[in-house]
Amino acid sequence: MSGADGEAGGDRPTVLVLDAAPGEPPPRLGALTGRARVLHASDASGLRALLPRADVLLVWDFTSDAVREAWPGPGPRPRWVHAASAGVDRLMFPGLIASDAVLTNARGIFDVPIAEYVAALVLAMGKDLPRTLALQSAGEWRHRETQRIAGTRACVVGSGPIGHAITGHLKALGIITALVGRRARAGVHGPADLDRLLARADWVVCAAPLTGETRSMFDARRFGVMQPAARFINVGRGPLVVESDLVDALHKRWIAGAALDVFEHEPLEQDSPLWTAPGLIVSPHMSGDTVGWRDELGRQFVELYGRWESGRTLTNVVDKKRGYVPGN
Amino acid sequence: MSGADGEAGGDRPTVLVLDAAPGEPPPRLGALTGRARVLHASDASGLRALLPRADVLLVWDFTSDAVREAWPGPGPRPRWVHAASAGVDRLMFPGLIASDAVLTNARGIFDVPIAEYVAALVLAMGKDLPRTLALQSAGEWRHRETQRIAGTRACVVGSGPIGHAITGHLKALGIITALVGRRARAGVHGPADLDRLLARADWVVCAAPLTGETRSMFDARRFGVMQPAARFINVGRGPLVVESDLVDALHKRWIAGAALDVFEHEPLEQDSPLWTAPGLIVSPHMSGDTVGWRDELGRQFVELYGRWESGRTLTNVVDKKRGYVPGN
Repeated sequence: MSGADGEAGGDRPTVLVLDAAPGEPPPRLGALTGRARVLHASDASGLRALLPRADVLLVWDFTSDAVREAWPGPGPRPRWVHAASAGVDRLMFPGLIASDAVLTNARGIFDVPIAEYVAALVLAMGKDLPRTLALQSAGEWRHRETQRIAGTRACVVGSGPIGHAITGHLKALGIITALVGRRARAGVHGPADLDRLLARADWVVCAAPLTGETRSMFDARRFGVMQPAARFINVGRGPLVVESDLVDALHKRWIAGAALDVFEHEPLEQDSPLWTAPGLIVSPHMSGDTVGWRDELGRQFVELYGRWESGRTLTNVVDKKRGYVPGN
Repeated sequence: MSGADGEAGGDRPTVLVLDAAPGEPPPRLGALTGRARVLHASDASGLRALLPRADVLLVWDFTSDAVREAWPGPGPRPRWVHAASAGVDRLMFPGLIASDAVLTNARGIFDVPIAEYVAALVLAMGKDLPRTLALQSAGEWRHRETQRIAGTRACVVGSGPIGHAITGHLKALGIITALVGRRARAGVHGPADLDRLLARADWVVCAAPLTGETRSMFDARRFGVMQPAARFINVGRGPLVVESDLVDALHKRWIAGAALDVFEHEPLEQDSPLWTAPGLIVSPHMSGDTVGWRDELGRQFVELYGRWESGRTLTNVVDKKRGYVPGN
């Protein structure tokens, strides 16, 4: 797992970048000049041609299934795959899981931005801001009472760095916040506590990785457990939620509102009932994307590359059995 | 200043309530049954008839000028006036200032709700939530980059309990926050620092009392001092801001946005240019009004009444020279 292999042959290692959609900026990898041969592919066929020659694959477009489609069978392939995203669900396919390729992610980059975004949603919903803006558009002066946020209860699902950051931000606002993860430990509830915590939460925040265990975890039964005054927020991955069940729950007023930043299909289909579900805020997968986020992702990859080329241990290594970077 | 005077005459003290607009709930004063004779007036003429007989005036409608219009000249009048609001600007008229009537306010009730409301506005503007909602209405998926809030700078003007609470909430979000008051002291900047702090603030929050010194303090010159990326928030009183200057500043992009919860004239006139000024959020004087706020105001008055009737010192006493309750 060291670039020394490549250099032994007199060659610089080859870094293959799966670029994002046309028009999206590529990563700034100027710091790798003279240290790596950087190739680009924009789709599965481009990847298929280049993957056998690549030492490193940088998955810049985390929304793509191209890696799954193009992953080589036996024979040469990247020894290291880096995802420029926190979630690596699109890379959790059997070929990559079974291979000896090390998988890393963008752990750390999105924690504070997403925590801020969740705090923004909680406060906006508590203070009835969407209605204020709608009334302003109508030129209507209508005083309402809003929710006192301090002393309300939140349940944050997903105990990685993003879930921890969200918990910190909500606690800072005086919200009594419980964090739920895959296993109970200090400061984190296990799955056995989930329904009990959901049943008393004013805010349910999903920031879990998408895995076989978490897929569809927010379904009709779980929305039914929540309080009628509860609001649900998903900043994890779309398929964590059964979208049709959420639409039903909102129409039937099982819960008071929701905000989704991620969806089963992105961009969200024009005719999706989510656009107009009552009390639902739809945002286009942007919760973590503060100004400069791409540069931070590029810097992070360059830093990891420095470790890799000098034979040091990589950080942010995904446990391919679990589908995320194990923490504490 | 003791209800014992009234009781000496065998009479219960008379509490006169200036009621809020028709349809607005009156204060719950059941706890005063047998302890006070409670009368109600709804306008200046009602007040004028009853004020000479009142020991205590409870100004439940803080938006009214009726007290100024009806305040008696020489002769009997209330010894204690309580405003069910934080700001007492409508009561700062010469007759009341010159009288020996003690004036108290609702200090403490609105601190956390308003701090939460300001945090909601800061985060909503930083995360571009109004545009997200507008795009959702149009069924449009458009990813944008938003602002990282941690590390930005705020200048909070007004160093009473509300300004302090706002400062605490903004600091909890990682915002570098300076607080400005009438005089410099530990943790509070004096007016001499104001322009320098405005010039580098991403967020300027006005939570000052309306006095002769603060009226119109946010004018063209001060908006000109601010950064083009700055957002201005007013949760104090409308006349702290020269509204036409703010509209100009927004149209000329001197600042990036603003949010007003208070206005020179409330309700805001139908034809006010504020409704549609670019980047401006208009809300109907509700920042402090969380569910149960009226009950809290009533409880606070009953508690103060208990002090008053037993001859103990009143708290929340306004310094009538300054126009607010002096603190530290």
